[in-house]
Amino acid sequence: MLLSGTVVRDAETVLRDGAVVTSGEEIVYVGGKAEALDRYPDHERREFDIVAPGLVGAHVHSVQSLGRGIADDTELLDWLFEHVLPMEANMDAEAMEVAAKLGYLECIESGTTTVIDHLSVNHADAAFEAAGAVGIRGVLGKVLMDKDSPTGLLEETDEGLAESERLIREYHGSFDDRIRYALTPRFAVTCSEACLRGVRELADEYKGVRIHTHASENRDEIETVREETGRSNIKWLHEVGLTGGDVVLAHCVWTTEEERDLLAETGTHVVHCPSSNMKLASGIAPVREYLDRGVNVALGNDGPPCNNTLDPFTEMRHGSLLAKVDRLDPTELPTETILEMATTNGARAAGFENVGRLKPGWKADVIGLTTDKSRTTPVNDVRSHLVFAAHGDDVVFTMVQGNVVYDGEPTTVDGSAIKTRAREIADKL
Amino acid sequence: MLLSGTVVRDAETVLRDGAVVTSGEEIVYVGGKAEALDRYPDHERREFDIVAPGLVGAHVHSVQSLGRGIADDTELLDWLFEHVLPMEANMDAEAMEVAAKLGYLECIESGTTTVIDHLSVNHADAAFEAAGAVGIRGVLGKVLMDKDSPTGLLEETDEGLAESERLIREYHGSFDDRIRYALTPRFAVTCSEACLRGVRELADEYKGVRIHTHASENRDEIETVREETGRSNIKWLHEVGLTGGDVVLAHCVWTTEEERDLLAETGTHVVHCPSSNMKLASGIAPVREYLDRGVNVALGNDGPPCNNTLDPFTEMRHGSLLAKVDRLDPTELPTETILEMATTNGARAAGFENVGRLKPGWKADVIGLTTDKSRTTPVNDVRSHLVFAAHGDDVVFTMVQGNVVYDGEPTTVDGSAIKTRAREIADKL
Repeated sequence: MLLSGTVVRDAETVLRDGAVVTSGEEIVYVGGKAEALDRYPDHERREFDIVAPGLVGAHVHSVQSLGRGIADDTELLDWLFEHVLPMEANMDAEAMEVAAKLGYLECIESGTTTVIDHLSVNHADAAFEAAGAVGIRGVLGKVLMDKDSPTGLLEETDEGLAESERLIREYHGSFDDRIRYALTPRFAVTCSEACLRGVRELADEYKGVRIHTHASENRDEIETVREETGRSNIKWLHEVGLTGGDVVLAHCVWTTEEERDLLAETGTHVVHCPSSNMKLASGIAPVREYLDRGVNVALGNDGPPCNNTLDPFTEMRHGSLLAKVDRLDPTELPTETILEMATTNGARAAGFENVGRLKPGWKADVIGLTTDKSRTTPVNDVRSHLVFAAHGDDVVFTMVQGNVVYDGEPTTVDGSAIKTRAREIADKL
Repeated sequence: MLLSGTVVRDAETVLRDGAVVTSGEEIVYVGGKAEALDRYPDHERREFDIVAPGLVGAHVHSVQSLGRGIADDTELLDWLFEHVLPMEANMDAEAMEVAAKLGYLECIESGTTTVIDHLSVNHADAAFEAAGAVGIRGVLGKVLMDKDSPTGLLEETDEGLAESERLIREYHGSFDDRIRYALTPRFAVTCSEACLRGVRELADEYKGVRIHTHASENRDEIETVREETGRSNIKWLHEVGLTGGDVVLAHCVWTTEEERDLLAETGTHVVHCPSSNMKLASGIAPVREYLDRGVNVALGNDGPPCNNTLDPFTEMRHGSLLAKVDRLDPTELPTETILEMATTNGARAAGFENVGRLKPGWKADVIGLTTDKSRTTPVNDVRSHLVFAAHGDDVVFTMVQGNVVYDGEPTTVDGSAIKTRAREIADKL
């Protein structure tokens, strides 16, 4: 395909009257439109106001989509134990499939082409199949909870690890390697030492598999871990093997200087979730502290019950705005940095190579946007437009690994049927 | 008209299968749909997923719309004096008209039916006419700048006040009393004592006219005022007459306890602009401190160069999220409070009676929303959906004082022509 328009090649570079040409799974050309038309006369042509790399949601909970808005303005522990976990526990395989499909639909419709996704304890297969069907790129994992967890989600340590291993064999590298596996213990509070150490063993055995968990989101969480282990949370995770280049930690709001150094030294990835941290009143993650140490920081929307959207543009805007007011510095987390966090940093955290940029030889994960609304008129700076003014509704076209998955309507699944069924199931839950 | 759907009557009350019936400028019925159909069989009927009161943007700069994105990630003083003010100074009457129309279009398309609007020093007539033409409700004012201001905007004290008086006579109560006047000195830094005292005199002479200015947004601003007057900013404004029930102060980020008490005692209205305060790194306004003292606090988007949108849903979301993380309390500024700020509190600040609620005898300012997208599925709580999940793109219908001004497309002006001309003029500016 020949996709033309103002091309945002990466966080630094914009090409006016540009074009991106894809062939099979890859990008084969990025440059001027005139030359593209000349060199690729037979390619199908599409014109957009803006052509940009697909965005990366590096921490999402697709299967919580049915719980959008179920516990707004609520204290974190009530939110989790009274609302969100009971909902997950009540979901059967069909509910899980519909919830995951709804979540992935929202992602591809709003410009996210790659996710790192915490599923739930049960029925993970349904979500893997959903991701395959919708056509998104993702690193997904069945959640592990073997202590201090509600009935319906609590499981034996060995059982959870064995099920994880089965899912790795089944789905890691599936769907043309669009779908990969992440071992996803919920967090240190609901996972035993044996569980966490077992996760590290599996990750070492199955190279390329990620480890993804929540860490140091909340002060009560840290206090609990300290009481139980005698260690601060990140140091505890480090001790049981949950730091390193294959580890992606969501949140990291409350960390000590020593822990930040540890994250940098071990090459552990951090996912900043500004909306969720604001809405649940968790706190403001010290993103600048991480970036200055060379920690790879990506962006994530977290789940619909704590956001309430999976729109990646919302997260870029909130990320930049929150950092600016937190540090009383309007130059903090500027456009370029935020775009990197939402593209290449996210892809790096997910472990996908050649994803997150429009570049020949890189995967054809591309979005097309319109700027025809009053609220997007005029566009004085294309890149800052993406961060501060655009949102997911402006995305009119989404391609993942060369496949068009959204073209005004989802092309891979029946969007209306999924939404209708989602409303029915949500009413029952 | 008979508008049916889930009716959000006000911040507290939701009616399933409800209806709102309007006749002329007013609402004549709010209640069950079945009864409405029975009682008003001949009214034109429209069905929406959600029917809600029009929202109030209590501090906007419509005429800065052409500068959307011109100075993102920039220090405040550079932002104002290097980018925004020079743009305003360069705008001729046509640019002002197009900018204002674009701003009002964005408002009505995203659910704002009432604005309090700081225009610019020159060509205010063009913006008043634009507001009249688009059909929005508003309190507008020509900006006053008689000291320390750039060429092209600086004017003589008497000249600015005389022009304000001319505009009051011309436009206060115009367009069926949809449009009223606010005396709008830019801020204490660019207005002499004579100017500020002159504003108070005019407001006392022309009852019903508002006074609207920026106050205590930024620490440098406060320092400047202290150096020049020996007083903290709000105390200075109080001394020259710029507090009281007819005064609307935007921002109020940096205030002392004594100043907060003063705002409460004098019945001065405060407009919280969370996005702008975040993006310009001004700081976090102490909204809770104001509300606890009984100060009327409304919400405002400020201008497109510092937001970059006039979408009122963005502002509701940012307002609640910022308050929660600031106070580390997820119950802070909950749904009801935010909805009140964006409706009745805004209308009170603007001085419009019977605006901001769906109630018989109140003005027919009504919006209709769709919830048919993936990102708005499911809707588990209608009111929190409006605050945390919905945004302006979900608005499909807007009525102001009984007139339909937006119905998928603007009905009063040619939206496409305005956007095209806005892009042309922005390129030249």
